[in-house]
Amino acid sequence: MELILKNGRIVTASDTYKADIGIRNGKIVTIAQEIPCLEKSTVIDAKNNYIFPGIIDAHVHCQLPMAGTISSDDFINATKAGACGGVTTIIDFSTQMPGKSLVDSILQRKEEARGKVCIDYSLHAGITDWGLAQNEIDRAFQEGVSSFKMFMTYRQRGLMSDDAQIYHALEETKKRGGIITVHAESTPLLDFLVKRYHEQKEQYGAYAHVLSRPDMIEVDAIERAVRLAELSKGRLYVVHTSTGRGAMAIREARFRGVQVYCETCPQYLLLDESVFQRQDGHLYASCPQVKSKKNQEELWHLIQTGDIHVIATDHCTFTKEQKDLWKGDFTCIPFGLPGIETMLSTTYTKAVHSGLISPSRMVALLSTNPAKIFGLYPQKGTIAIGSDADLVVFDPHKKSVLDYKNLQTNCNWSPYQGMEITGSTAITISKGKILAMDGKFIGEAGQGDFVFRTACQTI
Amino acid sequence: MELILKNGRIVTASDTYKADIGIRNGKIVTIAQEIPCLEKSTVIDAKNNYIFPGIIDAHVHCQLPMAGTISSDDFINATKAGACGGVTTIIDFSTQMPGKSLVDSILQRKEEARGKVCIDYSLHAGITDWGLAQNEIDRAFQEGVSSFKMFMTYRQRGLMSDDAQIYHALEETKKRGGIITVHAESTPLLDFLVKRYHEQKEQYGAYAHVLSRPDMIEVDAIERAVRLAELSKGRLYVVHTSTGRGAMAIREARFRGVQVYCETCPQYLLLDESVFQRQDGHLYASCPQVKSKKNQEELWHLIQTGDIHVIATDHCTFTKEQKDLWKGDFTCIPFGLPGIETMLSTTYTKAVHSGLISPSRMVALLSTNPAKIFGLYPQKGTIAIGSDADLVVFDPHKKSVLDYKNLQTNCNWSPYQGMEITGSTAITISKGKILAMDGKFIGEAGQGDFVFRTACQTI
Amino acid sequence: MELILKNGRIVTASDTYKADIGIRNGKIVTIAQEIPCLEKSTVIDAKNNYIFPGIIDAHVHCQLPMAGTISSDDFINATKAGACGGVTTIIDFSTQMPGKSLVDSILQRKEEARGKVCIDYSLHAGITDWGLAQNEIDRAFQEGVSSFKMFMTYRQRGLMSDDAQIYHALEETKKRGGIITVHAESTPLLDFLVKRYHEQKEQYGAYAHVLSRPDMIEVDAIERAVRLAELSKGRLYVVHTSTGRGAMAIREARFRGVQVYCETCPQYLLLDESVFQRQDGHLYASCPQVKSKKNQEELWHLIQTGDIHVIATDHCTFTKEQKDLWKGDFTCIPFGLPGIETMLSTTYTKAVHSGLISPSRMVALLSTNPAKIFGLYPQKGTIAIGSDADLVVFDPHKKSVLDYKNLQTNCNWSPYQGMEITGSTAITISKGKILAMDGKFIGEAGQGDFVFRTACQTI
Amino acid sequence: MELILKNGRIVTASDTYKADIGIRNGKIVTIAQEIPCLEKSTVIDAKNNYIFPGIIDAHVHCQLPMAGTISSDDFINATKAGACGGVTTIIDFSTQMPGKSLVDSILQRKEEARGKVCIDYSLHAGITDWGLAQNEIDRAFQEGVSSFKMFMTYRQRGLMSDDAQIYHALEETKKRGGIITVHAESTPLLDFLVKRYHEQKEQYGAYAHVLSRPDMIEVDAIERAVRLAELSKGRLYVVHTSTGRGAMAIREARFRGVQVYCETCPQYLLLDESVFQRQDGHLYASCPQVKSKKNQEELWHLIQTGDIHVIATDHCTFTKEQKDLWKGDFTCIPFGLPGIETMLSTTYTKAVHSGLISPSRMVALLSTNPAKIFGLYPQKGTIAIGSDADLVVFDPHKKSVLDYKNLQTNCNWSPYQGMEITGSTAITISKGKILAMDGKFIGEAGQGDFVFRTACQTI
Repeated sequence: MELILKNGRIVTASDTYKADIGIRNGKIVTIAQEIPCLEKSTVIDAKNNYIFPGIIDAHVHCQLPMAGTISSDDFINATKAGACGGVTTIIDFSTQMPGKSLVDSILQRKEEARGKVCIDYSLHAGITDWGLAQNEIDRAFQEGVSSFKMFMTYRQRGLMSDDAQIYHALEETKKRGGIITVHAESTPLLDFLVKRYHEQKEQYGAYAHVLSRPDMIEVDAIERAVRLAELSKGRLYVVHTSTGRGAMAIREARFRGVQVYCETCPQYLLLDESVFQRQDGHLYASCPQVKSKKNQEELWHLIQTGDIHVIATDHCTFTKEQKDLWKGDFTCIPFGLPGIETMLSTTYTKAVHSGLISPSRMVALLSTNPAKIFGLYPQKGTIAIGSDADLVVFDPHKKSVLDYKNLQTNCNWSPYQGMEITGSTAITISKGKILAMDGKFIGEAGQGDFVFRTACQTI
Repeated sequence: MELILKNGRIVTASDTYKADIGIRNGKIVTIAQEIPCLEKSTVIDAKNNYIFPGIIDAHVHCQLPMAGTISSDDFINATKAGACGGVTTIIDFSTQMPGKSLVDSILQRKEEARGKVCIDYSLHAGITDWGLAQNEIDRAFQEGVSSFKMFMTYRQRGLMSDDAQIYHALEETKKRGGIITVHAESTPLLDFLVKRYHEQKEQYGAYAHVLSRPDMIEVDAIERAVRLAELSKGRLYVVHTSTGRGAMAIREARFRGVQVYCETCPQYLLLDESVFQRQDGHLYASCPQVKSKKNQEELWHLIQTGDIHVIATDHCTFTKEQKDLWKGDFTCIPFGLPGIETMLSTTYTKAVHSGLISPSRMVALLSTNPAKIFGLYPQKGTIAIGSDADLVVFDPHKKSVLDYKNLQTNCNWSPYQGMEITGSTAITISKGKILAMDGKFIGEAGQGDFVFRTACQTI
Repeated sequence: MELILKNGRIVTASDTYKADIGIRNGKIVTIAQEIPCLEKSTVIDAKNNYIFPGIIDAHVHCQLPMAGTISSDDFINATKAGACGGVTTIIDFSTQMPGKSLVDSILQRKEEARGKVCIDYSLHAGITDWGLAQNEIDRAFQEGVSSFKMFMTYRQRGLMSDDAQIYHALEETKKRGGIITVHAESTPLLDFLVKRYHEQKEQYGAYAHVLSRPDMIEVDAIERAVRLAELSKGRLYVVHTSTGRGAMAIREARFRGVQVYCETCPQYLLLDESVFQRQDGHLYASCPQVKSKKNQEELWHLIQTGDIHVIATDHCTFTKEQKDLWKGDFTCIPFGLPGIETMLSTTYTKAVHSGLISPSRMVALLSTNPAKIFGLYPQKGTIAIGSDADLVVFDPHKKSVLDYKNLQTNCNWSPYQGMEITGSTAITISKGKILAMDGKFIGEAGQGDFVFRTACQTI
Repeated sequence: MELILKNGRIVTASDTYKADIGIRNGKIVTIAQEIPCLEKSTVIDAKNNYIFPGIIDAHVHCQLPMAGTISSDDFINATKAGACGGVTTIIDFSTQMPGKSLVDSILQRKEEARGKVCIDYSLHAGITDWGLAQNEIDRAFQEGVSSFKMFMTYRQRGLMSDDAQIYHALEETKKRGGIITVHAESTPLLDFLVKRYHEQKEQYGAYAHVLSRPDMIEVDAIERAVRLAELSKGRLYVVHTSTGRGAMAIREARFRGVQVYCETCPQYLLLDESVFQRQDGHLYASCPQVKSKKNQEELWHLIQTGDIHVIATDHCTFTKEQKDLWKGDFTCIPFGLPGIETMLSTTYTKAVHSGLISPSRMVALLSTNPAKIFGLYPQKGTIAIGSDADLVVFDPHKKSVLDYKNLQTNCNWSPYQGMEITGSTAITISKGKILAMDGKFIGEAGQGDFVFRTACQTI
């Protein structure tokens, strides 16, 4: 065996127990009370530490062009930062250009990632021209892509799909075991309100971003998408849910038998819209924006009740200088926030250390559920014989104060600056290799593989 | 006094009691235990009969162009038929043409009605070009119009308004005490399904009309409209609700404080979608179509619980020959059904005679509620001192079998042919004049007035 | 005509209009635009005033023995006070003694009222021994009693009925058109908590009354009673509902078709449990006690949505000296609050003047609904030809500050002392006779009649 | 290693994967891709089979006195039968006698089991006299008992606890990490209906059992118990839930944060109340009885949605001859049904083979959840290093027809006779020893241990 983890407390989505883990050829081959060190194995003593399956960040944007700039974490940086934060797999996005091939966009994005990604990755294929894309679904599957992103907004930017297109896509992908992920915000009223507040932008500053996106913009889109899934019997995944009412609509639909999953992001759990009233409020702009304290509380409640299935980051980093390009116009802010490096420790602090959920439930949210929903399981998402040896040795006791200066993320500020953290990623292992220790990346760029995904699994 | 009704059982939305009614100058001036017949008054003995306030049909289409023909009841005929069925006021529709003035369309429709209408009438002003209409709202009010119809569908026909336009119109009309009425069906998926089933029209015939309009087409639109009313704090009225779930959404919204009202029509209460599987199924096509038996039962339940506020007809008559223009293509059927003449007797039979609701509740549904919601009250909608003497003497015991041959409606068939009826309009009085007796019109064409409406009243 | 009211604004549960009212032999005989004053009639000019049907207080306790004393308003005083506050009918209670006849208790209570009551009255017959009472239901109806009160608590005092008895009573009374009213608090846990806090009574004082009666004590009993009504198909009326959740349970049950009605009282709408933390908190003790601000807000919301059907007072007055008998032990407080004289003006102020509900809806809550539910309608509860001339001339503009010193109630304090009031009862008329003017009783004791009640009417 | 299972498909509550399992000293010590057979180990080839953690039947009655007889499966027989059906742990019940010690009843029941039980067992301590029992809770924990059963019915038999006692017990047990389990049926109305139908027993026969227990008897008790848990913040477990509405009440309470769990039994999932109309309907009597088809469907739905947490049997066997003691009087039927031997295969057939839930979800319902809820985890309830080697080798493909003649249960009939079964327990292993193969018991009586339980774990 090339690597042995001794004495750790293994956590899966249902169990917690103490055992040694033995790794050969990048796979977990033995879990035992005691693994003897007969071979020339590397041995890690994980005593007093948890061992989690590697975190899967199902929503990442590397080097994304936006608002006239490009997000500051490229494939190298974002994945290095991820590794330092316990992330061993990301799912990034390809984006079909209107009038262009869906599969070409997948191939092109793979090209952009090649030689750069430091951890394993996959892609959601963004569909912007269903007329063309509908004939490429089979080929996308052949390229290892089984999830497809559609936008219910961004009409002006040419990204939007209408209800009929989403309905049809739900039908077509479902036949093959695929899933549609949606950015759920309703366009016509949103555009109207953005225009209204744009005319008063001097008065409201960054807070206009809040005023122009009342909760119902998201709630309406989620309820609509859910109904399309219900009628089509397709599979739906709602990304970056920011409202309690939106998540509730998903809970209710699932009770009726609709196959729909709910993702939220750290920013919706850790921040609230009062940040937009700060002097530097524009820094915090993402899309959808963080909502009211009441929504934050409802999302936490739904985490606890099991009605939110995945936490992912929507990682999309911009430096202060990039954010400052807005020059007072909220419609020109590069939307996005960093998160990949801090998700595990902030979630552990607020959800597990606080007693809200068990370590197993956190593992489900950050690893097992996204793996199952997106066809990565059982290769990824758990600690079991035959699975990839993607593992996080996590010290649940270490305390620290979050400071962007200590992070690998390419960003000169942090939305969570100063937050008190309990728990820390000690070692990150990908396919049996140690990638990061104590927040320092020690692997090599380009060692990540594209993970070929298959049919989604129902959870 | 010009007219005295003696010994009738007066029914208002809250009370039932025996009294005489004295009328002078078209108004109710006395209600008393006994009105002495001192003057040269006409006297009607209404013993053993109910006296209802004149029925207000809040949803009527006279001589409406559709699918290459014109609905067969013009202003004369529809209002004659209405008078025979106890209706003393209708609200018809004007329709703004894209690029044209809203007020002009009101004036033009008044012109079309002039000299023809046999009972009082008003108009909902159909808005199809909000960009122009938004500057004409004040003038519409000056023309006596306080309700505005918007379509959430019919994109191809240039009638549709989007969410932003409806939101803005809710804001603008609310300031003046007005109300927005919506035809709630969601367009993109509907168009997609119509196209899908149009390609299979030989296979499904008229039943394709059912297949292309699953419940969620309406439910989605209603929930969306309700949310727009909630955010804008405007007043909303949903016409021809055909699904139980749609009406439930209104119930739930009202509980949250949204000012929204629910209208359904006799066809949704008396028929179900199985009619489309008949040989002559296309005759029954309206828009939205009658839905499943389950929906019908839910609508009746919501009538009983008080969660439906108005029953109106959506009267739009086509003869068999006109309906036959479809030639097997469900998208070419002239949509519409007659109803103005039979609404009172069919509702009395199924709702009151059956014991489901009280006579007072029926009066609320057919007269008082639409009067209050649409600014006709207290001139219309009740039996009270100072109100117009619009009255129906109704014999609750008379039994008959519904036969289109006995109706004044210009139609050579009836969707309710053969239905057993209990209760009959004996006499219809409009502004103190007898218009109809025992199903025969004895008034004169053109005696109806345009009723100037004011701000809506909350119910 | 003996009495003519001119120029008033008549308010019924559905209509508001200006007219004159003519009264003969204690009945309303004419409502007209103008009633000529030909006879030697008394004429009242009600210009600028509302005319409401006389208020019916469906929950009154006159001279009730409790906690070793007797409530300070006897039949004379309570009904005088009521008359000054616009109340023209009360329903008081008889109480069967265990092992004794139900009908005897009715006869005895009539005897106690005879010659004293200044306004009309009826009785709910309290059942405490169903084994005996079940054979007397027919005779109770013959005595004009169609509603029966049962207690779900007060086990120690021998008043309690268990679920089986209530179920059986619902079955038996329903056959005759009767109704069961329940005091809904659940006993076993209540007794346990009272005992627990009694042991700590020094620590908590009057606030122990709050601690020993958490919301669920009432909610549990209401939900249980509602289920009994559902299974038995009987008619149920829940008195003095003090929790929002309890009232919601009734709303939900009615939607399922259960015949159940919800009463709340002014104290639950005007006070909240913080009063028990005052030095003189024990004064405010009633049973159930006033609840949290949140409950108060929920009850107001349910008033607005139409889900509460009756406001009645549970009038049961104790002077400061009587209340002081508690001597620090919350279980010894005489439970009860005055209210009959102030209900109309406080409700008008908070519900109508504030814009929450219309005058018609207030009339429904205070007069028409209790009349219909309890078989007093149409003799009482509306302004219509043939009804008793029980009328309130109400000045909606008069402002005052509530002061117990100005009230006729026999009480040297008021729970609403200092409340700013808009609207005032100018004249109270019972069966055509003027009983009170401007808060002074000018009628005579004993002029009230026992009103023979019949089957309940569904609302 | 004493025992090696090779090539099986291990199923835990979250994962499924192929691996070998190595067992030493009755514990699982290794899970690996390949365990070499170096020692004198017994080796089982589990190829093509699932390996489940041993089933935990959390609701078993061995040799229970009832209705003048004793249930026909004693500790030996019931546990032999269980072993044949994949059950490796049962939780039986001790019953405190009124006026007697709780702990004595535990000790006595242990005595009865000693030397007989063939698999591991524990006890729920039935509380019937809370006054005495409240002082023995600590000692019960010291005896390894952390769950306590209370009856909301059976007043006549002296078993019932009232709401205050249950509330107090919830408070007291919660302090120590314990849990209260309740038999939820409401007594007063139940007794009344039983008496009513007892008087008509000739007319209704066994169906009177259905008529006397309408759904609300259970629903009322569950909602009440849930409220007591809510107020006390205690832990509650509802045994043998037979109504959909009852289970829904638990779902709703959990959403509000109440710690309550829902158990149902195979009979409520496989039978419906129509069995009571059969000639031999009395055989099927259990308490509560199986309910309507609608309830059955709702329970299955709630299994699928994850809102039912445990399936257990309420195993309590009576032979035909014992059941016949009823002699036509439904109140004299010995209540109870066999189930321990068939639960796994019938559940697999209807829930997993049918595609309704995954094998992991079945493992949660039958093993992991009861282990966690009742403090048996991680010793029992999963397949993990350090856990007891309680394992079931399960052939998912084997088809059979259920026949009581092939069962070890001491019963000459089966409620599921003739049911088509897919899936079969091939081998049952308890603490590393093979107890049963292909439906034959090959272990020895008395080898089962009493399992000392600790604090409940939140799921």
